[in-house]
Amino acid sequence: MKPSSVVIREVMLRDGLQNIPDFIPTEAKIELFRLIVASGIRSMEITSFVSPKAIPQFQDAAKMAQAVLKMKPEGVEVSALIPNLKGAQLAVESGMRKVGFVMSVSESHNINNVRRTTAESIDELKKILELKEKYSDLIVKAGMATVFGCPFEGKIKPEVTLNFIRQFYKLGIRDMSMADTVGFGNPNEVKEMCRLCATEFPDVTFSIHLHNTRGLGLANSLAAYEAGIRVHDGAVGGLGGCPFAPGAKGNTSTEDLVFMFEEMGVSTGVNMDALLEASRYFQKVKKDVRYSSSIIEVGIPVPKGAITKDGSEQKWNL
Amino acid sequence: MKPSSVVIREVMLRDGLQNIPDFIPTEAKIELFRLIVASGIRSMEITSFVSPKAIPQFQDAAKMAQAVLKMKPEGVEVSALIPNLKGAQLAVESGMRKVGFVMSVSESHNINNVRRTTAESIDELKKILELKEKYSDLIVKAGMATVFGCPFEGKIKPEVTLNFIRQFYKLGIRDMSMADTVGFGNPNEVKEMCRLCATEFPDVTFSIHLHNTRGLGLANSLAAYEAGIRVHDGAVGGLGGCPFAPGAKGNTSTEDLVFMFEEMGVSTGVNMDALLEASRYFQKVKKDVRYSSSIIEVGIPVPKGAITKDGSEQKWNL
Repeated sequence: MKPSSVVIREVMLRDGLQNIPDFIPTEAKIELFRLIVASGIRSMEITSFVSPKAIPQFQDAAKMAQAVLKMKPEGVEVSALIPNLKGAQLAVESGMRKVGFVMSVSESHNINNVRRTTAESIDELKKILELKEKYSDLIVKAGMATVFGCPFEGKIKPEVTLNFIRQFYKLGIRDMSMADTVGFGNPNEVKEMCRLCATEFPDVTFSIHLHNTRGLGLANSLAAYEAGIRVHDGAVGGLGGCPFAPGAKGNTSTEDLVFMFEEMGVSTGVNMDALLEASRYFQKVKKDVRYSSSIIEVGIPVPKGAITKDGSEQKWNL
Repeated sequence: MKPSSVVIREVMLRDGLQNIPDFIPTEAKIELFRLIVASGIRSMEITSFVSPKAIPQFQDAAKMAQAVLKMKPEGVEVSALIPNLKGAQLAVESGMRKVGFVMSVSESHNINNVRRTTAESIDELKKILELKEKYSDLIVKAGMATVFGCPFEGKIKPEVTLNFIRQFYKLGIRDMSMADTVGFGNPNEVKEMCRLCATEFPDVTFSIHLHNTRGLGLANSLAAYEAGIRVHDGAVGGLGGCPFAPGAKGNTSTEDLVFMFEEMGVSTGVNMDALLEASRYFQKVKKDVRYSSSIIEVGIPVPKGAITKDGSEQKWNL
């Protein structure tokens, strides 16, 4: 395997915060954005344009979008999640030009999650794409939830997901994301799915969004990397899922992803010390947050006592 | 990747207990052995024949060996760690016929760990092998510590390890173990090292012993599996390292290894429910033990609410 590079897309501000019931002040979210960008992260999902009734945490979506875009962070891809046309409209009106439409490949999860059949979701996506007539620089990405398992239907066959990808492709979408929403995937399935995608759609950029529910987050990311996936979602501190339940795990921790790839010689462009500033800052904002990240737990990548024979301090990759 | 099978070697009774300062009663250790065997584990390191002054936990090594061998667990490979000739003698006198000699491939770690140069350790191994003249059914295995990094010397070049393997091979040893003693390895290094071993020594059985210090335990095991390694060490509850420090991680958790492989369709022969009995039992014996295992944390592999559309309970692989 040759040294290469990956893009770590930070989803803390969206997936990481979405299950936190207390509203996090917009100023704190903006400061998190600033700290994360300062660490070298070059892609970030900053909010979700959902109904404030459904998820009050994102009542400040428009404000967040405007504030972040005003900062004009050079070379940073800023995107927002949209579940429907209304969200898309609000997003573009707030200045967003990259939106991620999400639907589940599992019929029953889609109905539970967005109150639509998958066919209805595809129709909604078509309407969203019509926004491009007015906003020609709008990029619509398609995200697929429950690709590696659904809490209602269990395992989902790759063919089901491929059929959605084919529909997205016909609609002109070239940026797609596959999510292991409930952490059901295993490395074999992830690798197989990613290989099928790369073979049939060589001109599509696929990203992977993994949850670490049963500890397989990094192993699944490794499998996806081996199958050619170069965009990996992570959340600072492994947030996501339920961040207050002891033992509950959310998204794969960005810190752990960065550590794994950098150690492998795969460049992420992220500075670990600077990245850890973000989790420390959020811990001040939200004192009862419980992270799930090996790097944060162990504290430093280099164990104490790591000294060379001549007594000088050992230098490590990180 | 075709479905296959792996052997999970349980090292809780050795590596898992060796940093626990309070002596665990021999009866409890024997009960753990019984529970672990009942789960389907077919290989176990049951103790270490070290000086009771160095590690008081193993003052009952001979007693453990005798008790376990008396149980004659069918089809279960029982081994003990030995750091030197004296340990080997005590082991064979206790009836052990499979012993694992351990030395570090890092010169400074070997000196710190067993107070010998690596050349002196090899000489010691030769003396141990002479025991085969008297005990013809004795199998001596060679374990290498710090293969993927040393706290004093940092990264160790694969060639250093290969040179030790060549020496072991010339001495007739065909069962070898590579350990990531401090959790420094990454999937690329693990895969590369395992591939080098498989290429140069196709008739040697290599096993891998990983620590999950920075969360890479499963990803590294996956990498080793992909490079052909079929014997993977694990410890119940992820014990090992320092089991009382919050956040400290030890060996890769057996539960997580079993979960990953079984989900991948790779048979381990282990029943998860029965395996979890062992960690529950040990928690009663040692109330302040802190496990590091995603499966133990999440509680059950199947999330609550995992039901089919018709309302019946969803069946999973585990």
